[in-house]
Amino acid sequence: MRYYFLWAGLLLLAIPLSGQRQITNFNEGWLYLEKNVPYISQLPQLEGWQPVNLPHTWNQWDATDNLPGYRRDASWYKKEWHIESLEDRRFLLYFEGANIKTSVYVNGRLAGQHIGGYVGFKIDITPFLRLKENTIAVRVDNSYDPNVIPSQKSDFFIYGGITRDVWLMALPDTHIERILISTPSVSKSKANTSVKISIRRPEGESQTEGILLVQAIEPGSNKIAARKELPLRLSKDLTVAELQLPAINDPWLWSPDAPHLYRLEAQYLENGRVVDELQEAYGYRWYDFEPHGAFYLNGERTLLRGTHRHEEHAGFGAAMPNYLHRQDIKMIKEMGANFVRLGHYPQDPEVYKACNELGLIVWDELPWCRGGIGEEEWKKNTRNLFQEQILQNYNHPSVLFWSVGNEVYWLPDFPGGGDTTKISAFVSELHEQAHRVDPYRLTAIRKYYAGASLVDVFSPSIWSGWYAGVYTNYQQALERERKQYSRLLHMEYGGSSHLGRHTENPVTGSGLLDENDWAEVANQVNIKNIAHEGDWTENYIVDLFDWHLKVSETTDWFAGNAQWAFKDFGTPLRPENAIPYVNQKGLANRDGTPKDAYYVFKSYWSDVPFTYIESHTWTERSGPENKSRQLCVFSNCDEVELFQQGVSMGIRKRILGDFPANNLRWDIEFREGVNQLIAVGYQDRETVAQDSLLVQYTFRRHGAPAEIQLSASPLPNGNLLIEALMVDENGHRVLDYEKRIYFSADGSGTLHRNYGTPTGSQVLEMANGHAAIEFNPGAGRTVIEARNQDFKGAYLVLDFSEEE
Amino acid sequence: MRYYFLWAGLLLLAIPLSGQRQITNFNEGWLYLEKNVPYISQLPQLEGWQPVNLPHTWNQWDATDNLPGYRRDASWYKKEWHIESLEDRRFLLYFEGANIKTSVYVNGRLAGQHIGGYVGFKIDITPFLRLKENTIAVRVDNSYDPNVIPSQKSDFFIYGGITRDVWLMALPDTHIERILISTPSVSKSKANTSVKISIRRPEGESQTEGILLVQAIEPGSNKIAARKELPLRLSKDLTVAELQLPAINDPWLWSPDAPHLYRLEAQYLENGRVVDELQEAYGYRWYDFEPHGAFYLNGERTLLRGTHRHEEHAGFGAAMPNYLHRQDIKMIKEMGANFVRLGHYPQDPEVYKACNELGLIVWDELPWCRGGIGEEEWKKNTRNLFQEQILQNYNHPSVLFWSVGNEVYWLPDFPGGGDTTKISAFVSELHEQAHRVDPYRLTAIRKYYAGASLVDVFSPSIWSGWYAGVYTNYQQALERERKQYSRLLHMEYGGSSHLGRHTENPVTGSGLLDENDWAEVANQVNIKNIAHEGDWTENYIVDLFDWHLKVSETTDWFAGNAQWAFKDFGTPLRPENAIPYVNQKGLANRDGTPKDAYYVFKSYWSDVPFTYIESHTWTERSGPENKSRQLCVFSNCDEVELFQQGVSMGIRKRILGDFPANNLRWDIEFREGVNQLIAVGYQDRETVAQDSLLVQYTFRRHGAPAEIQLSASPLPNGNLLIEALMVDENGHRVLDYEKRIYFSADGSGTLHRNYGTPTGSQVLEMANGHAAIEFNPGAGRTVIEARNQDFKGAYLVLDFSEEE
Repeated sequence: MRYYFLWAGLLLLAIPLSGQRQITNFNEGWLYLEKNVPYISQLPQLEGWQPVNLPHTWNQWDATDNLPGYRRDASWYKKEWHIESLEDRRFLLYFEGANIKTSVYVNGRLAGQHIGGYVGFKIDITPFLRLKENTIAVRVDNSYDPNVIPSQKSDFFIYGGITRDVWLMALPDTHIERILISTPSVSKSKANTSVKISIRRPEGESQTEGILLVQAIEPGSNKIAARKELPLRLSKDLTVAELQLPAINDPWLWSPDAPHLYRLEAQYLENGRVVDELQEAYGYRWYDFEPHGAFYLNGERTLLRGTHRHEEHAGFGAAMPNYLHRQDIKMIKEMGANFVRLGHYPQDPEVYKACNELGLIVWDELPWCRGGIGEEEWKKNTRNLFQEQILQNYNHPSVLFWSVGNEVYWLPDFPGGGDTTKISAFVSELHEQAHRVDPYRLTAIRKYYAGASLVDVFSPSIWSGWYAGVYTNYQQALERERKQYSRLLHMEYGGSSHLGRHTENPVTGSGLLDENDWAEVANQVNIKNIAHEGDWTENYIVDLFDWHLKVSETTDWFAGNAQWAFKDFGTPLRPENAIPYVNQKGLANRDGTPKDAYYVFKSYWSDVPFTYIESHTWTERSGPENKSRQLCVFSNCDEVELFQQGVSMGIRKRILGDFPANNLRWDIEFREGVNQLIAVGYQDRETVAQDSLLVQYTFRRHGAPAEIQLSASPLPNGNLLIEALMVDENGHRVLDYEKRIYFSADGSGTLHRNYGTPTGSQVLEMANGHAAIEFNPGAGRTVIEARNQDFKGAYLVLDFSEEE
Repeated sequence: MRYYFLWAGLLLLAIPLSGQRQITNFNEGWLYLEKNVPYISQLPQLEGWQPVNLPHTWNQWDATDNLPGYRRDASWYKKEWHIESLEDRRFLLYFEGANIKTSVYVNGRLAGQHIGGYVGFKIDITPFLRLKENTIAVRVDNSYDPNVIPSQKSDFFIYGGITRDVWLMALPDTHIERILISTPSVSKSKANTSVKISIRRPEGESQTEGILLVQAIEPGSNKIAARKELPLRLSKDLTVAELQLPAINDPWLWSPDAPHLYRLEAQYLENGRVVDELQEAYGYRWYDFEPHGAFYLNGERTLLRGTHRHEEHAGFGAAMPNYLHRQDIKMIKEMGANFVRLGHYPQDPEVYKACNELGLIVWDELPWCRGGIGEEEWKKNTRNLFQEQILQNYNHPSVLFWSVGNEVYWLPDFPGGGDTTKISAFVSELHEQAHRVDPYRLTAIRKYYAGASLVDVFSPSIWSGWYAGVYTNYQQALERERKQYSRLLHMEYGGSSHLGRHTENPVTGSGLLDENDWAEVANQVNIKNIAHEGDWTENYIVDLFDWHLKVSETTDWFAGNAQWAFKDFGTPLRPENAIPYVNQKGLANRDGTPKDAYYVFKSYWSDVPFTYIESHTWTERSGPENKSRQLCVFSNCDEVELFQQGVSMGIRKRILGDFPANNLRWDIEFREGVNQLIAVGYQDRETVAQDSLLVQYTFRRHGAPAEIQLSASPLPNGNLLIEALMVDENGHRVLDYEKRIYFSADGSGTLHRNYGTPTGSQVLEMANGHAAIEFNPGAGRTVIEARNQDFKGAYLVLDFSEEE
């Protein structure tokens, strides 16, 4: 066998000559130019180019910095690539996604373009290649263009760049381009499989005879479950073959609990020789949606227990490596979810792979988010994107829903773009498009009431206890919506919480401020708009979720819902949030650190025993003497026993729906000073889990804020955690201080100033009189400052200078 | 005469060989390295150096950007300098000021250091020079150092860099180093003059004989008013000669109204040859301070009508060219002031020169601002600075007060630094130091009550109607303070105002919100903290100043006061102001554009006739039909007549103290649509001034804010003004919308994002539903965005691309 040697960055790649396709990662060794050069002829040779590897976004840091805006403009990427022979091969570049408009040039000539981010595309670069040295140049543009969805008015950053992996595909001249696998009927006893295979022969003889060999391999084995041979007469260019596999008896079914994946192998042979072969993972499952009722997977009622995932991460933006994509999905799965809405756009291939493999049902969504409807150019772009999205995610057993969009009517980007007649017509068109391409899944839409009946599944907007009403209204809201929509899934509920912010006087389920401990009489205040006036405490959001979960877990007709959103995420729309430019509705910080709310979900959904005392970020508390406090433990154990200072406070039985904390709650009196708490979880009277916590409690009420105190302590990664405390004139922490703190540093070290996390934001609101920022020390002296509008500044001098 | 040719930047400078000193500007042709390199030996040769001219600060742009902090660190300046001969000359570098610690190296060797900003210093570089090529390197450091005043907790930026001019002084070996001119007794009929002259002879013979010739030249002539010759035996190093000039009869007195300046010429001669000569401007004036009463200059009661000046300007920071220094003083003078406090530090030499020449009495202040007292190092630095300050400003007739500091006790930077016993002892020490060096001026301090009697003049803190109480209490506050302090000057009053913010329902002099036009009944709200809760309208601050001026102008025992501050200025302490990081208490924007309040002062103080209709930044108004509005005209004319649509609304006589507007007010009913207003000013029945204004008025009340509208219009300088309007769903401007707007731009043009002005800040609060930012277009396309926490964004696409 002969090999071509490809020079790609620093890698020497061996590509077999024929009969075998070779897919090579093409991420390394790029140069990047952060300049909007309109024409390739104007590109500078050397000046300004910086080495980068992919995935890459130029908005990695400017999204969540504290300057308004983030770079929305064009940039260039460039890579030199060496090849020794071009014979008998097609060379394609496969971009998993580039945001949001891409032009690919090979040796100065335009090889292809793609409009729209978030979906992958292939560019056949063969005609433009030459022997030995080749230059690939890619212009990517995320500048404002209302003709490309999503609307800039969406509540997330539209990260610019080649934000996903790129692959070099060296294919046989005649090659399998795509396999679409459908499972038109599946039951426990029998599964039918339709396969549509596209074979491309860009050049060569116009007609050849061959054989297509297709077989399905059983999960976790090499056992052939079904096999089919199809003689094929191949035309030049594209040939599409459709075939049915023999029925499979007693198929391994795919479900979140048991995500069995089959492997489909397709070979195209001519004269007994394999011309090309390709494999695809897929699965067998079926679903039913009871009218106005529950959802069934493989014949069993399955409550969709979901959350949402945005594709971005602290310090990375959207340019996440695969391990982080998988980490997100893994955390969602470990929380016990069986469902995820990939809102508001299709995501990295690794995400679907993880959902297939780990078992999460997927709501996949066209990025038509806000902005209304545009004219013909907009429509063409939108249709194309939807088509590409469906085709590339077609084989994933995890995907059950094609959502055509979210809040599509809102904040139109075009004159008349909010016209519901026009919007509804296009929603119908997309619905039909989806069913034409893929008759086996449901279409969906969220919060476009005029189009609720134009798609298969509808999600109204219900934000009980956040944007409207109180969380205790949730059941009532569901019952009301149930009547109106035949297939109701409830996407998006929750609210914002600021890690470490807790209160002894939380907003109640009636939307009232609870009595103030220190006041003589109860002082209830009606919170009219909790999103704006609420305290953004973890306590409140824990209660809100606890209530929502109690409702969904005990409502037997209910199909399911998805909490918004799993992690905090960056957004240009919220410059004045507790962490500016971060949507803080996550169950975890933007870096994946769980908040209290994560454990509430886990307590309802997960099977792995645990106990979590509320709250590990609430270890300094105060209150009058002899005032008891309700302490909640979130756990999935049968019973939990709480110990205070080693003394049992009693065993509580977990009672589903007994709010709060499914009855795992105790009224305890904290003592002055350190309180040791241990929560032991029992399953069938066996100890299966334990959590412990130290709470510093004081009967002394703090005074007025008087001073910011700064301190530094080492972190495991070698950095320092800089902590700012607001203290009163006696040095006692002011536990209700919530105003913004501004950090800065001068000298040799650097602050984690734009990670969009509670320890990675230069500006953020204090949580219970505390704020922190991570600091990466330099070799010399650094002066760190914390101040705000009312306090003139505190200084911390750190000196890591070597003696000279 | 022979000349040495000096190569300084691009200038060829001719320096006479001897007998004449040559002072050459040394501002041009520097290189700047923005890196804290600790040792000169570690300086890179080429990498990182940028060409700059002086004055220069590295905080020109980062002070008022929207990131917390500003660079406080060390940087380097470097200049190559060529000289052909070093014979018989001393070469000194004179820095007018460098912030805040400076080390000067010549050819790699340390020539001198200076600790403390804001005052000038000279470094004798002669011993370090060599023939031909010389390298001057200057390390300047504004990093946090509590041992150097002012405290970082001061309400202004401590701009780093060589922020003022640098001069090369080529002096005769034996040269006059300093002349100190005192005027121990002055009356209308006679003026005595003491002169102290320091002559330096660093090298040469230990004793020589010479003659000192001193003469005083009359203002505006070459007429010798007094002359003295003094034989002198010169020692090596330093010789100080003291002499009295013959008394001058009927001297031209210096006063703000007639700032006559004498010129003192000093020559030192040996063997009939002039060795060196030096001239100094000075003046004759005397003052009295009535116990608990008025201030007298040259025997006449003089109400000190003052304001404050910070040394900084939009787009420059502290590195202002001389024309801008003079422009500030000129504007203050043109407003009619006779007094300025240079708060909180000594300022550029051009400032004193302008005050001398234009006629402004100066309160000069040691930069001991906040931070309490430190230990010995702090004290040494502070004493040194005060000494240098007094000596260098000694001859200015404008300077009458040496202030030792401001709020010195507050926010101590050292443990125990707030101890008033220690602080008072040091205040006394500084007071004595000042009197020892300069017995002819008064010492002063502001807002250090424990030290009120330790200095000559005291200013308490009175912020009637801003930080405390209501402005109508001002008289009462003055009367109370008068009793306690024998020499009372009131420094600092005023409040913040946001250009263009006006209201039909202003906060009243009783600290109440006026009735709401559209409400059925009066709805008065008590504003408890006007600084925090007030509306920052121009209306309120106009009323506040009008009232303060009425009080000071009609209180005959009163010595005077100074409004805080003339221009808006940058401050690190106020990240959440209407213009973030800008103290908006100015009568003018940070770029010198007057606000309404400027005209209030002018109406009381200036002699140049004018009329100003309130307000030129309030041209869109609304209210119910048949509701009359009080319209004020600020003017210094005897009488003013107002015309509405060409119809006279009557003539009003100016009555000093008739609040508001000294009776120049009309109740008028606006008509729907455009209202033409003209205010004609009469002096002795002659028309002497006129102002006109168009006001768009509507009887329609705007609805709720619905959308941000963006537009662009050309400015005279070729830039565009980008305006954002908050409109309701009918497109009507929401006149009471005040929230922050965030501007950003992507593409080829740039926003004036960090000028700290109402059209030069990327983030700022709307004023009456309006905000603007200046835009400098590039050659291509730019997308400008405006949004805020509640509104998802408006886009303006500007395209200046050439057709290709």
